[in-house]
Amino acid sequence: MDLIIKNGVIITAKDTYKADIGIKNGKIAAIGKEIEDSGEDIIDAEGKYVLPGAIDAHTHLEMPFGGTISADSYEAGTRAAACGGTTTVFDFALQQKGHGIIQTARERDEICAPQACVDYAFHVVISDLRPEILDEFQAAVDYGLPSFKVYMVYKKEGLMADDGVLCQVLEKSKETGALISVHAENPDLIDIRTEKYLKEGKTSAWYHYMSRPEFVEAEADKRAIHWAKSLNAPLYIVHLANKEGMEEVKKAKDEGYEIYAETCPQYLYFTSEVYKREDGRNFVCSPPMKGKESLDALWKGIKTGDISTIATDHCPFQSSEKDWGKDDFTKIPNGCMGIENMYPYMLSEANKGRISFNKAVEVCSANPAKIFGCDNQKGSIVIGKDADIVIYDPKKEFTISKDNMHSDVDYTIWEGVKLKGYPVMTLSRGKLVFKDGEFVGKPGWGKFLKRKIKR
Amino acid sequence: MDLIIKNGVIITAKDTYKADIGIKNGKIAAIGKEIEDSGEDIIDAEGKYVLPGAIDAHTHLEMPFGGTISADSYEAGTRAAACGGTTTVFDFALQQKGHGIIQTARERDEICAPQACVDYAFHVVISDLRPEILDEFQAAVDYGLPSFKVYMVYKKEGLMADDGVLCQVLEKSKETGALISVHAENPDLIDIRTEKYLKEGKTSAWYHYMSRPEFVEAEADKRAIHWAKSLNAPLYIVHLANKEGMEEVKKAKDEGYEIYAETCPQYLYFTSEVYKREDGRNFVCSPPMKGKESLDALWKGIKTGDISTIATDHCPFQSSEKDWGKDDFTKIPNGCMGIENMYPYMLSEANKGRISFNKAVEVCSANPAKIFGCDNQKGSIVIGKDADIVIYDPKKEFTISKDNMHSDVDYTIWEGVKLKGYPVMTLSRGKLVFKDGEFVGKPGWGKFLKRKIKR
Amino acid sequence: MDLIIKNGVIITAKDTYKADIGIKNGKIAAIGKEIEDSGEDIIDAEGKYVLPGAIDAHTHLEMPFGGTISADSYEAGTRAAACGGTTTVFDFALQQKGHGIIQTARERDEICAPQACVDYAFHVVISDLRPEILDEFQAAVDYGLPSFKVYMVYKKEGLMADDGVLCQVLEKSKETGALISVHAENPDLIDIRTEKYLKEGKTSAWYHYMSRPEFVEAEADKRAIHWAKSLNAPLYIVHLANKEGMEEVKKAKDEGYEIYAETCPQYLYFTSEVYKREDGRNFVCSPPMKGKESLDALWKGIKTGDISTIATDHCPFQSSEKDWGKDDFTKIPNGCMGIENMYPYMLSEANKGRISFNKAVEVCSANPAKIFGCDNQKGSIVIGKDADIVIYDPKKEFTISKDNMHSDVDYTIWEGVKLKGYPVMTLSRGKLVFKDGEFVGKPGWGKFLKRKIKR
Amino acid sequence: MDLIIKNGVIITAKDTYKADIGIKNGKIAAIGKEIEDSGEDIIDAEGKYVLPGAIDAHTHLEMPFGGTISADSYEAGTRAAACGGTTTVFDFALQQKGHGIIQTARERDEICAPQACVDYAFHVVISDLRPEILDEFQAAVDYGLPSFKVYMVYKKEGLMADDGVLCQVLEKSKETGALISVHAENPDLIDIRTEKYLKEGKTSAWYHYMSRPEFVEAEADKRAIHWAKSLNAPLYIVHLANKEGMEEVKKAKDEGYEIYAETCPQYLYFTSEVYKREDGRNFVCSPPMKGKESLDALWKGIKTGDISTIATDHCPFQSSEKDWGKDDFTKIPNGCMGIENMYPYMLSEANKGRISFNKAVEVCSANPAKIFGCDNQKGSIVIGKDADIVIYDPKKEFTISKDNMHSDVDYTIWEGVKLKGYPVMTLSRGKLVFKDGEFVGKPGWGKFLKRKIKR
Repeated sequence: MDLIIKNGVIITAKDTYKADIGIKNGKIAAIGKEIEDSGEDIIDAEGKYVLPGAIDAHTHLEMPFGGTISADSYEAGTRAAACGGTTTVFDFALQQKGHGIIQTARERDEICAPQACVDYAFHVVISDLRPEILDEFQAAVDYGLPSFKVYMVYKKEGLMADDGVLCQVLEKSKETGALISVHAENPDLIDIRTEKYLKEGKTSAWYHYMSRPEFVEAEADKRAIHWAKSLNAPLYIVHLANKEGMEEVKKAKDEGYEIYAETCPQYLYFTSEVYKREDGRNFVCSPPMKGKESLDALWKGIKTGDISTIATDHCPFQSSEKDWGKDDFTKIPNGCMGIENMYPYMLSEANKGRISFNKAVEVCSANPAKIFGCDNQKGSIVIGKDADIVIYDPKKEFTISKDNMHSDVDYTIWEGVKLKGYPVMTLSRGKLVFKDGEFVGKPGWGKFLKRKIKR
Repeated sequence: MDLIIKNGVIITAKDTYKADIGIKNGKIAAIGKEIEDSGEDIIDAEGKYVLPGAIDAHTHLEMPFGGTISADSYEAGTRAAACGGTTTVFDFALQQKGHGIIQTARERDEICAPQACVDYAFHVVISDLRPEILDEFQAAVDYGLPSFKVYMVYKKEGLMADDGVLCQVLEKSKETGALISVHAENPDLIDIRTEKYLKEGKTSAWYHYMSRPEFVEAEADKRAIHWAKSLNAPLYIVHLANKEGMEEVKKAKDEGYEIYAETCPQYLYFTSEVYKREDGRNFVCSPPMKGKESLDALWKGIKTGDISTIATDHCPFQSSEKDWGKDDFTKIPNGCMGIENMYPYMLSEANKGRISFNKAVEVCSANPAKIFGCDNQKGSIVIGKDADIVIYDPKKEFTISKDNMHSDVDYTIWEGVKLKGYPVMTLSRGKLVFKDGEFVGKPGWGKFLKRKIKR
Repeated sequence: MDLIIKNGVIITAKDTYKADIGIKNGKIAAIGKEIEDSGEDIIDAEGKYVLPGAIDAHTHLEMPFGGTISADSYEAGTRAAACGGTTTVFDFALQQKGHGIIQTARERDEICAPQACVDYAFHVVISDLRPEILDEFQAAVDYGLPSFKVYMVYKKEGLMADDGVLCQVLEKSKETGALISVHAENPDLIDIRTEKYLKEGKTSAWYHYMSRPEFVEAEADKRAIHWAKSLNAPLYIVHLANKEGMEEVKKAKDEGYEIYAETCPQYLYFTSEVYKREDGRNFVCSPPMKGKESLDALWKGIKTGDISTIATDHCPFQSSEKDWGKDDFTKIPNGCMGIENMYPYMLSEANKGRISFNKAVEVCSANPAKIFGCDNQKGSIVIGKDADIVIYDPKKEFTISKDNMHSDVDYTIWEGVKLKGYPVMTLSRGKLVFKDGEFVGKPGWGKFLKRKIKR
Repeated sequence: MDLIIKNGVIITAKDTYKADIGIKNGKIAAIGKEIEDSGEDIIDAEGKYVLPGAIDAHTHLEMPFGGTISADSYEAGTRAAACGGTTTVFDFALQQKGHGIIQTARERDEICAPQACVDYAFHVVISDLRPEILDEFQAAVDYGLPSFKVYMVYKKEGLMADDGVLCQVLEKSKETGALISVHAENPDLIDIRTEKYLKEGKTSAWYHYMSRPEFVEAEADKRAIHWAKSLNAPLYIVHLANKEGMEEVKKAKDEGYEIYAETCPQYLYFTSEVYKREDGRNFVCSPPMKGKESLDALWKGIKTGDISTIATDHCPFQSSEKDWGKDDFTKIPNGCMGIENMYPYMLSEANKGRISFNKAVEVCSANPAKIFGCDNQKGSIVIGKDADIVIYDPKKEFTISKDNMHSDVDYTIWEGVKLKGYPVMTLSRGKLVFKDGEFVGKPGWGKFLKRKIKR
């Protein structure tokens, strides 16, 4: 063995038990009552929980958007991830007009590879669907890129997939073993509502919410699910944030369709009330946080299994850039931070009794691994999997603050939030990358994941 | 009295009883056990049923479409209506770019007024929504034009209302006491499917159906209902023809929303199988006839009250024009006939026991009168209402044929259909317009109806 | 004509219009714009509404129960009915052990006939189901007695029909054209809860409610509906008073089953809060009034058509008898008054805009006539029907009080309730029985109705 | 280590991976890539699957019933269990009148302990609910007996819990941390239908089914769920076998209630058609097998998680006893065998692709362990749990026959059924009890499980 984690309580999506873990060549090589010590490195996890690292299936690092670039580079973002117990990051690679799928991923990989502090994968965003792109699906899947995303919004920005495009990629994904993710909001409604508020001089962050309230998101959820069911194609809805959409997901799942919903920690903790705060613009993201009823519905969905995964949509902007929209919500760059907060927040809620620890592991690690096809390496603590492991101290009190976060952003929307329990170490393939509040990994360590979705 | 109908069995949406009817100045003036005869005209209705005339809330007469004009002029169409027991016709007046709502109706009225053989009204189709048009809603409602229509299809043709337009007219209609009708199908799906079939050389009428099957209509039904519910605005879905849409209507009604669904006789009698016939192109209309499951769901909806009205979407084209699409279904002018068949068909089904006669009167007359705001004059047989009356012989056997129809079209999709019972007379405001198979009215008799919807 | 009602606004379940009504031989003989006056009696209904008399399909007059007899004799009860605009009363005839169905009705008719002030019919309560009784169903139906009732409660009292009995009568009713009514509550739960409260010394009227709360009634509703659906037999649930039962009724109706629900005015106006009043025992009836959610659900059911009828369960006891239970709720004779309040209350709610007048007529008159098979005579104002007519003054203000009621009971639970509008005259088969607050009919006038249910 | 299982593929409810397992003192002590061999016993599982032993939560061994005793003694039954990969058996201990709960379990334990070949637990059947029994619940739970059962049938036999009893035990179980199981069928309906068929001379096994068809079971399912939901108490429905009940379970679970459903292999493989076979009486059990729709609904429920567990209701009778009912289905002792077939059958279905192996482990092992409170010892393969392990050969072809079964019964209803894959070894707490078709364990080895349900 290279390393032994002793005396901890191992928690996976299904089991909870006390045992030692032996790690060799970056993989879990032994689990036992008492693994004998023959001079290896030892981590004593007595009184601690030993969990699989989280998988954040939704980030936007170093992404050009709204006239600037999202504030966390691949290095900063994956560093923050490691410090929050997230050992795998799925970033979005946006197809440029005329480019191919694999080309898009490779272009992005060139930027990411030298910086990545933990393992990573890409979802390619299809923004220019041509017959050649449909023809390239199989090759992309075979290359290890079996997940794509389309936007049902951003019509004016030229990113929107209309229903024709959406249906074509759904059909093709079903045929080739891929999975389509959608950002579901209705662009026409956003446009007329935004225009109306601007005309009325209603320009505060609150009107960001008012221009895209619950029913505007729900419509797109329902439409996307309708197509997926009609075509019998699998579908993954990113950052679901409203009750009516949640109910439609549940109905589809009950009927036996392969529909997955992801939500984000910000929709589980904050409500639209934040947009009334003076710093409301810092919370501007799309879809916006919604009312309490939606928050409750999402938590219920986690319990019933209708929410499959938690991810972050991490896409922060510096406060100076957020300030662009001080007097006009349409000028606020959209996006919030969460990459370092997701796992600690969900585990804290488990620790407080809202859900079980097993459930937290399931939605933050086991499920995204399985759904996106890297469960051969990630998502659990069993022999042969990558030693992506978090040592969690259930007794540690932690208050989130700009100062104890590890991204490059100059504020956090989570400022002041108190957590019960916190990660004390993170291992990425057996290597310690976070310890006692400090990042101890290095850029370039993270590897690109080739994936394959089993169906 | 000017006229007495003696000895008939009067059937309204709720009651069935034997009595005489006295008519004066075109209105029902007396109903009694035995109205005394003082020299007036007498119709002996012994053994006959006496019903309110039907209201066809959906026709396209003399309408420019697909490079030609629909084959029935206002004269031919309203003549055929009279001969089928329909005494009120709602035609669509299509707004030209730059024109106003009232202007649009007036322009159409100039063409219609001299020809109309029965009373009529217009739904104005909003195809060019500008702020001035929204501002004109109240004036139009006050003018007696409280019902408008928008198309969710015909994107390429420039008629489509996108979701922003649809939501704006829904909100404004709620505010002003108007009612919005929608043609619900998804244009993007129709386009990609049509393109695909053409590319594959699949050009027969069957591919008209295949390019707009059940789920393509259902999506738009669900979306329209979503907006109406979210905005709490009333909504009327024209020519609903699929099961899934029917279920969404039922759900919305159960929840207490004011949602109305109309279907047409062709969706109640024919299925998509007709498109496999050699003369399949003659049945091409949009939405197309669907499968047996949908037909059954529509009949169930009639029984449960989830279908509110029956109308025809009467829009026939001569067979020579239908032939344009012999080798390419996209070249077939869309539309079928039904104006003379609706009431006889529905009454025949009642006569065969499928529904009650009261229900047939409800969906063909009482409900459209109420929903579209002319129930002060139409829709029942009670004192003070217009004497729009049908004398129906429940024993008469009738086989529909091109030769016994009264439109200008050179064929009928209903050819050979056998009915049990048939109208033997029709009165429009007390005047006999149809008798024993012959039209006996005259063009110009019909009057424009000013309407007001009560809520 | 014998009598003409002039200038009133006639309101039926479907139509509202102004006309005169001519009455001859107790029946409606003419309806017209202006019926000519040739010396008949004239009622000037200018400014008034002219409505069909109500049908109270659920009363217990002169009924032995709980060691006494319900306080209104047939004379007092039907007199009060007449004074509240109710012109037909359905009373329950309880089968004695060993007696037959027709025998039971005849025995009761002997008591009722000399006293009845308005027309009446009987539902026979089956309490002793033997093979001979099942064999008698067809004869009873042919005799004009097509409606029976069974109790799912009163196990200890020996009245309860267990599931075997219930299913047998449902099957037989389907076969013979009869309709089964059920009183749906769960006896075992009532027993264990009652015993528990008594043991704990909780003996106030509030514990009458607590011993049979919402879920205790709902269970029996659901069970009765389950059997009716499974056997595909029609079912009528009397005095439905809870939300969950309401929802099950709606579901069954949506699925196409012939399930009817009745509720009573007391469940539409009062909630279980009344049991906390000092005179709470006066409100004790079974099922008890429920919470506000149930009340709201019942009103919603009226609007959606899921409540078919309103009836009263009129079964009052003198206050001295109610006092028996001052210190023990189990000793309170169960039952409340309503026979004189039902129609005025429902019409007042219509007058205040909660429902339409047409809807009030539908649930109080047209529907019970149709469901229980006397719509050949009752339930509407059309030629040939009995002249059971109410003249209603929509402007009259009325406050219910013991002093302005016409039953023999020495209090009313409706004391102090203010109504908007009130009946000013009632006609029973053309004869004036109530005028300006006074009963002007006579015992023995009312006739037994032979009925036949059409299916 | 005492024993090492090498080279197998370990399958738990969530994970699938290749590793060795080391066993010490009857517990799983090590899992690793290659556990070093220091002279221990070795099982080479190359090419095999290594699974947690199954838990059969529903058996009736050596049970007096129908005038005889079920044919498998504790020894025979647990021997057969071991040979079918089932390493824990939950048997029912029927309370005698006047006896207490713990007393009942102890009485049964005295018979069972010397015979048991695998570990076991008891559900005590409450047949005589007195206040003292309710008072004993907490003590029983603390004793390690947290699960009880009541019968909603067997009214004549004096075993039936009426709704009052059922509700009392539900409430008390919620209060004390226990779980109530119910056998849900409606006794009144069974009685009237049975009586009817006997009277008509319809006495074949087919009428066993006809006297308790789908809707007779469904009613009791719905009623039990209604009470559990109303009282917010957890509920476990044993041997669910019909579609409508399945749907009600799903609805309750969706609403967030703690409702569990168990089904049995016989309801997943056979339909009611078996009762038409000449040996139909051998398949007589209660509830009977149902139609194909129900079978399909149960399989769907397994996939959606609405079926929580698979168990057997193992309660066989010798063919000579089954013959008692040759000419009268009411004389057939009720019950079938399955204890040796459950796991092999479910794993074979997994092997054929109907469900995943993980799912088979979940419903046959992980879930019953968790629901009934022995997951501290059973239900998974992780460090510290009992080494109850099955070595499964996915390639072995197996045809079930009386001759290769290990119970004492002289036939099997599973005769001739072909399985894909079969267990080749079973370990009970590390001890080999089944190998290559032979039982190699011994009576008395099995231990009584003290349990505690976590909530």
